[in-house]
Amino acid sequence: MKLVTLLTDFGTADYYVAAVKGVLLSQAPSLRLVDISHQVDPGDIPQATFLLSAAAPTFPKGTVHLAVVDPGVGSDRRMLAVAASGQFFIAPDNGLLTPWVREGEAHEIDRPDLYRKSPGHTFHGRDRFAPAAAFLARGGDISKLGPPVRTPVIAQTPRPRRLEGRLLGRVQHVDRYGNLVTDLPGEWLDGRFRVARIADQEIHREARCYADLPADTAGLLIGSLGTVELSLNGASLARQLSVKAGARVEVLLRNEGAAHTSA
Amino acid sequence: MKLVTLLTDFGTADYYVAAVKGVLLSQAPSLRLVDISHQVDPGDIPQATFLLSAAAPTFPKGTVHLAVVDPGVGSDRRMLAVAASGQFFIAPDNGLLTPWVREGEAHEIDRPDLYRKSPGHTFHGRDRFAPAAAFLARGGDISKLGPPVRTPVIAQTPRPRRLEGRLLGRVQHVDRYGNLVTDLPGEWLDGRFRVARIADQEIHREARCYADLPADTAGLLIGSLGTVELSLNGASLARQLSVKAGARVEVLLRNEGAAHTSA
Amino acid sequence: MKLVTLLTDFGTADYYVAAVKGVLLSQAPSLRLVDISHQVDPGDIPQATFLLSAAAPTFPKGTVHLAVVDPGVGSDRRMLAVAASGQFFIAPDNGLLTPWVREGEAHEIDRPDLYRKSPGHTFHGRDRFAPAAAFLARGGDISKLGPPVRTPVIAQTPRPRRLEGRLLGRVQHVDRYGNLVTDLPGEWLDGRFRVARIADQEIHREARCYADLPADTAGLLIGSLGTVELSLNGASLARQLSVKAGARVEVLLRNEGAAHTSA
Repeated sequence: MKLVTLLTDFGTADYYVAAVKGVLLSQAPSLRLVDISHQVDPGDIPQATFLLSAAAPTFPKGTVHLAVVDPGVGSDRRMLAVAASGQFFIAPDNGLLTPWVREGEAHEIDRPDLYRKSPGHTFHGRDRFAPAAAFLARGGDISKLGPPVRTPVIAQTPRPRRLEGRLLGRVQHVDRYGNLVTDLPGEWLDGRFRVARIADQEIHREARCYADLPADTAGLLIGSLGTVELSLNGASLARQLSVKAGARVEVLLRNEGAAHTSA
Repeated sequence: MKLVTLLTDFGTADYYVAAVKGVLLSQAPSLRLVDISHQVDPGDIPQATFLLSAAAPTFPKGTVHLAVVDPGVGSDRRMLAVAASGQFFIAPDNGLLTPWVREGEAHEIDRPDLYRKSPGHTFHGRDRFAPAAAFLARGGDISKLGPPVRTPVIAQTPRPRRLEGRLLGRVQHVDRYGNLVTDLPGEWLDGRFRVARIADQEIHREARCYADLPADTAGLLIGSLGTVELSLNGASLARQLSVKAGARVEVLLRNEGAAHTSA
Repeated sequence: MKLVTLLTDFGTADYYVAAVKGVLLSQAPSLRLVDISHQVDPGDIPQATFLLSAAAPTFPKGTVHLAVVDPGVGSDRRMLAVAASGQFFIAPDNGLLTPWVREGEAHEIDRPDLYRKSPGHTFHGRDRFAPAAAFLARGGDISKLGPPVRTPVIAQTPRPRRLEGRLLGRVQHVDRYGNLVTDLPGEWLDGRFRVARIADQEIHREARCYADLPADTAGLLIGSLGTVELSLNGASLARQLSVKAGARVEVLLRNEGAAHTSA
């Protein structure tokens, strides 16, 4: 019973997700489906990469992850299948799979014989990606989907920087609670947190969990992905600061060896 | 392992969908559930018909589709089970199943012995429809659910019209991206598209896919159901034009044999 | 094939629900997942209790219900597993499980050997609750999860009151349709309904189902949980009255033996 996860920007009010599932279950009746999310902002490829990176490691080996955020559907953009970390990843070749093409084996999907016949060119999730995912879920060999891809599209994401006494990063994701999930690795704090700066505000408090924070006091903690997170307890910091994904974050550290005076 | 799909206007914030699933899984433990959507606008029967029509053909033979958009719940409106296209369709007799009662075998659901005992009359999705769907999913004979229905409620939907050089239709559905999915069959264009008119605007460009459209330029293409779709690339045409489902669309065609001057 | 239901305030736009499911399916591959809801308002524990109370009875014996509304995550609040009504309930010890700890067998979850290693303390749904639920779904003995809990947190919910000729209760839940689901048992009406008062309005009509109500006329009926419900037909009474969960409701009854003059 292979698992297939779905991550799209289709929303849940249309028939799009169901159509993809119908094709998958028609072609591989014993597979099991898990939704990651269908609420990716339309066309927001970096958001899809973030969500898939965060969720995929919790799934078993052999899982097939099908990610369709595909503003170029129907154009000559390629379709990819990637084997990486013992799992499979299927998506348009638009940068979405950047973390996995870097480490894994990428193949173009080029199997017109597998595709669903369709009058239009606007729904490859149903007509092409779903059959490719079903092929892998049935145990098909990824190299049979198409030729290796040597130059997949790579997203140019700014990387967090670790300078002397100073960390520079950005907000990767704003979650439902208004927590600001940054790209700064938690271990870079090194027990020397002094202050975080975001949107002209300073955050001085370090906490272990949300409940450690007094009301209306923003704090820094290590979030569920091991990165620095900025939060309020019981309210949305994103709303309070009017901050969105992409916002810059600066963390200042105490001098090494300096007395531990805060937190 | 029978598949049962669910389409409702229950939303996903209440316990309603889960209660239907609990009853289904209690009565037919091996069935498999797939959500089509629970975001149908409350009581919007034509929208439910559209979504079910679009999704159902992707599912395997034998699938049981349970559609509960039921403003008349608890009144004397009938409940229907229909066998059509090798699948089963269960819904209130309120027009929702119009496409399938036209071609298939319709039975009233009248099996008080199957119903869940309940103090109220407001949740037949849980108390009556779910047991009927479980009955079919267990392999029960549809004719055992109740007598044939000769005069089911038929939705009076305006049909698209094909005139000399001119197609008249309407927007069937506005999707998450703001695409306007019309009821005009794509083959009616016949390679002679000249201009589309909607909401006092004219659309002159024909495209194969969204990415073919320049920024801020509306275009016409063949959508995922084979019908004419009006779209922007990367933005919502529905919002730009303030158009909703039901809006009229007119497409003018070039004279037959006239030189192909656009697209 | 054990069933595991999920009820959270995670929303469906983040990776949180998928991560919980990934851990569950990694640790108990044959379990089956059903979402109750992930739209609980952030941190709204009473709402979670309401939804779980309403949905759980429809599920089979042996079902494991995992409910994560956990503003205290990472603090020293306990985690509970409860066996009650032939099912299992897992949640933080924050009052969410009040109806089940009252009647069932409650154990603390204290099995660091089962937990997922994680750098942070903000996502016990993934790191601790999911492994505990998988343990029960694999047939593990609840008493092996940790010691019995004698003094679980109990939510202090106001109870409805039945006075002479007068019922006092409150709105427990506002559903998607704007129906006001109260905590007043329907049998308390005793066939003597006279008038309901809410938000300075009076409701005089009693109905069997929504369709019995004339347009724009509010009515009282017995809802899907057997409690009194206040509703409009085809519109939202909650919006019309600007009423939210918690609002007080008063129902006046006719004198016993008085002539039945209304409804």
